[in-house]
Amino acid sequence: MEQEVITQRVEALRSWMRVLGISAFIIPSTDPHASEYVPMHWASREWISGFNGSAGTAVVTLHDAALWTDSRYFLAAAEQLQHTPFQLMKERVEGTPNIAQWLCIKLQSGNIVGVDGRVNTICDINNLRELLQTKGIHLNLCSDPMEQLWNTRPSLPKDPIAIQPLKFAGEAFSSKLQRLKQKLLVHGADSMIISALDEIAWFLNLRGSDVHCNPVFVSYCLVSPDKVTLYVDRDKINNDISTYLKNNHVNLQVYEALESDLQHLYNCHILLTPQTNALITEAAAQNNTVIFVSSPVAEMKAIKNSTEIEGFRHAMLRDGVALVKFLRRLDSAVKAGGLTEIGVDRMLTDFRAEDPLFKDISFDTIAGYADHGAIVHYEATPKTDYELQPHGFLLLDSGAQYQDGTTDITRTISLGEPSAEEKHIYTLVLKGHISLSRLKFPRGASGTQLDLSARYAMWQEGYNFGHGTGHGVGSYLNVHEGPHQIRMNWMPAPILEGMTVTDEPGLYLTGRFGVRTENVLLAVPYKKTEFGDFLAFEPLTLCPIDTKPIDLRMLSSEETTWLNNYHSNVCKKLLPLLDNCEDRDWLCEATKPI
Amino acid sequence: MEQEVITQRVEALRSWMRVLGISAFIIPSTDPHASEYVPMHWASREWISGFNGSAGTAVVTLHDAALWTDSRYFLAAAEQLQHTPFQLMKERVEGTPNIAQWLCIKLQSGNIVGVDGRVNTICDINNLRELLQTKGIHLNLCSDPMEQLWNTRPSLPKDPIAIQPLKFAGEAFSSKLQRLKQKLLVHGADSMIISALDEIAWFLNLRGSDVHCNPVFVSYCLVSPDKVTLYVDRDKINNDISTYLKNNHVNLQVYEALESDLQHLYNCHILLTPQTNALITEAAAQNNTVIFVSSPVAEMKAIKNSTEIEGFRHAMLRDGVALVKFLRRLDSAVKAGGLTEIGVDRMLTDFRAEDPLFKDISFDTIAGYADHGAIVHYEATPKTDYELQPHGFLLLDSGAQYQDGTTDITRTISLGEPSAEEKHIYTLVLKGHISLSRLKFPRGASGTQLDLSARYAMWQEGYNFGHGTGHGVGSYLNVHEGPHQIRMNWMPAPILEGMTVTDEPGLYLTGRFGVRTENVLLAVPYKKTEFGDFLAFEPLTLCPIDTKPIDLRMLSSEETTWLNNYHSNVCKKLLPLLDNCEDRDWLCEATKPI
Repeated sequence: MEQEVITQRVEALRSWMRVLGISAFIIPSTDPHASEYVPMHWASREWISGFNGSAGTAVVTLHDAALWTDSRYFLAAAEQLQHTPFQLMKERVEGTPNIAQWLCIKLQSGNIVGVDGRVNTICDINNLRELLQTKGIHLNLCSDPMEQLWNTRPSLPKDPIAIQPLKFAGEAFSSKLQRLKQKLLVHGADSMIISALDEIAWFLNLRGSDVHCNPVFVSYCLVSPDKVTLYVDRDKINNDISTYLKNNHVNLQVYEALESDLQHLYNCHILLTPQTNALITEAAAQNNTVIFVSSPVAEMKAIKNSTEIEGFRHAMLRDGVALVKFLRRLDSAVKAGGLTEIGVDRMLTDFRAEDPLFKDISFDTIAGYADHGAIVHYEATPKTDYELQPHGFLLLDSGAQYQDGTTDITRTISLGEPSAEEKHIYTLVLKGHISLSRLKFPRGASGTQLDLSARYAMWQEGYNFGHGTGHGVGSYLNVHEGPHQIRMNWMPAPILEGMTVTDEPGLYLTGRFGVRTENVLLAVPYKKTEFGDFLAFEPLTLCPIDTKPIDLRMLSSEETTWLNNYHSNVCKKLLPLLDNCEDRDWLCEATKPI
Repeated sequence: MEQEVITQRVEALRSWMRVLGISAFIIPSTDPHASEYVPMHWASREWISGFNGSAGTAVVTLHDAALWTDSRYFLAAAEQLQHTPFQLMKERVEGTPNIAQWLCIKLQSGNIVGVDGRVNTICDINNLRELLQTKGIHLNLCSDPMEQLWNTRPSLPKDPIAIQPLKFAGEAFSSKLQRLKQKLLVHGADSMIISALDEIAWFLNLRGSDVHCNPVFVSYCLVSPDKVTLYVDRDKINNDISTYLKNNHVNLQVYEALESDLQHLYNCHILLTPQTNALITEAAAQNNTVIFVSSPVAEMKAIKNSTEIEGFRHAMLRDGVALVKFLRRLDSAVKAGGLTEIGVDRMLTDFRAEDPLFKDISFDTIAGYADHGAIVHYEATPKTDYELQPHGFLLLDSGAQYQDGTTDITRTISLGEPSAEEKHIYTLVLKGHISLSRLKFPRGASGTQLDLSARYAMWQEGYNFGHGTGHGVGSYLNVHEGPHQIRMNWMPAPILEGMTVTDEPGLYLTGRFGVRTENVLLAVPYKKTEFGDFLAFEPLTLCPIDTKPIDLRMLSSEETTWLNNYHSNVCKKLLPLLDNCEDRDWLCEATKPI
């Protein structure tokens, strides 16, 4: 049934393509703001293919259709694309052509490939154009076909915007603007288009709810030499926000007006990030000089100020309390029977939601029991929902949006007596986690340079994991934020004091079980020597790490000391906040030295 | 006196610039082949500035002059540039402008900067041109001013070329050509200009002696669809070589003819590396399509075949014997008095030169006693030459060119009773060396991803070193070869089985002492698992590592085991080759378990 609908949609797109003389059309997973998660209005790739993962690109030719996604989604995509016209293309698997190579096979010289310039960056378009040219295939910018084809397309969200007060934001908009202007000068720019939604929210000290789990709102912000303009749907602005913007000398324009406003801007030096969409870039370049640099706002946002850091610490205390309450009840709930993966999510979220500053979860909870733990981006559905048994591992990756900070934590919990293999794998992951957490490093090192610390121990035995080791975490903002990341591929952004980053190595034995251990870390000063400024990491997350599945013989004395110190700190910080003596007893037991 | 000569040369260059209407001229340290070390003919930067380091760029304007070099040469350059018109610019030191920034300060809009296109790559020129354009400064390609100004300029070397026999090379030219042609196809190319001298030598199984310590010869090689042409001075070709080339269907042309030959080539798809010089690139692009890719020859050369690997093993045995003979005599020579740094170099080189396959040293020996050990690229001169005393460290970095393999080894030797601090620093370096040597890693990881292993332990205490951790080593070729390197900055080239790479962390306490420990490693298969193909390193270098300065409490049991296993292997391999019983006793003592 659903598969038939997909086939009809693909056919409708092909009819549209034929009218325009296009031989292929590319539908990416993003929106005009290069968001990782998008408002439903822009879920075009899901609409056309039925695949609902956060990353994936659909390509439809007149005779073929294919969808590229990464290893996190191979299993889910294979299932969702079954009996649809879409062939699954496993990214970074040997033998999988990339989109350009596939198009060069499927199309003829002289054919035209269409893309919507509003949801593709100028870099992506230029790269693709160059690759297609080698076979004489052209790339044209088109309008969005879904405007015509997608009858039930959700409209753009109208959700109201809220102020993020100074007591949580820590720096007024006026100060951020002043700092940004200095950074623009360094790049020879006098203007900037901020198009990433979390950057706009951070810059203006505003929050929204347009994207699931991400407190952002759909908008653009143009910083020009003499003014700042927010392009946003007026329905989202109440009187308070309107006054706030007026007081801050921020002009308001409708969301759609940016393109034409840019066409009427002259002789500016506009800083654009390489993630700016092609239509906006072209409009900006019409009568101005465009300077492509990675966003200075992203780096400013990534370096938390002291108020934000205090906020994180407070949020982590309350998140830790919710986690302890949940973990204490988990064992008995499992033994009582009937607790499922979805139940775990509900139970934990309910504890978190007791907090007055709780706004939402920060991403869809991953509660993967047994072999589900080996599916990296598993989300339980009523169809897949396992009942937890008193044996095996539960991998639980979850987080919350509190107004003073965003959390993201993974614990792998042994529900019975762990096997020798489970202990071995669990301890390899823990060694990686500890090694990164203990690492000292020169200020400004990139995440790629640090990544090995989390993998050294597992590599010695031929184990590895396919995802990144760490990402930045927003301050009541997106749970994934850049510009820095800790991962094997090249991430040039430096790690600086005040940045948050997760430490989340894992190991996944397909069809059997998965292990991941994750804390959020804060980069803090360590020491200055004649060899440079060195930074250290301080774990912000406060929650016991299950000690039952540890193979003690595999830990060095430094690693054991780290774990005992971490647990002593967790206990010291959380104990005074627990009023139930059973919770307190559980915490003391869970954090006692090994 | 010397300083006056430099001033006169700079003035002569300025007169030449005035005639051409040029406001600045840039003199890099390289030759038309982007060589790290160059024939004296191209030592223009040394001629104009007096600075003789291997890396550095001189820039002369009508009123100023400056020389950029990296941290290895700060001390030497400061001394050599004293009282010359050149200001020392310390690269990668905060506050140092780069060349473009400095030119933008010193010059006016409309001014012209000149460069010699023959000794600058098209990429460097394009990057610089773009940066200068922001201030309206133009960049022009000029001829080489040294042709007019440098009266005593050495001519191009006429040294004869020799065949590297198949028993050492392991693969015939015809086979290399066939493999290269397949690689060109993958990139959509039918031709290639090989301009790196070591790539040409490897490709044709020929060797030369045009560059100090590098067995290469000045030439270009053009692989076109129907033939292979070597552009080289005819005086370098004797009858044997001429016959060899004829038999291999390699055409001969004079060195200078490549440019005009390219202008008469039509409709080819020519692969060029980004290191090809601008004049050659422009000539190639005139009537052909140019494809810029990193050199497929560099990767082919870096992956040693089994004959080359066997050659390395044999060379390391004989190098190890020479080192043991030297090391055994060092202690008594120091005690006897009168042994200097230059003496150390002579003594070691004499032992190496006893080998019939010894051709040359592979780089200028670094024998740095006491505080000289902290000067990373120290080369003793009669003026600086220290006499070794029975205390402190001797840092000895040396290597040889044998016809079956190139060696590169650093040992730091304690000449007396090491202090606690010396032991501490020595052991930190050793921990880094062992950690990289023990590392297992996914096939194809880049050196940047592996670099941390050598630095983790020292970073924990705020120590670091400013040079790379490892470089490829040629097979009777350049001691520094790419494309892979192990270092903090991004080196995308993958490390594959069969590649050699050095493992040489160090620590340098300015004005006091330096420590470095270096082996050449070979990447070998480790295991294939569901998580990928993993590689390990096998140390090729066979020479005891001084155990006296080790602080045993700082080594983990894995590290101690590694060292004992390494020493047991060194002893097993070298003992049968030593005919002097005192040498044998010394080796047994030096390699006994700790």
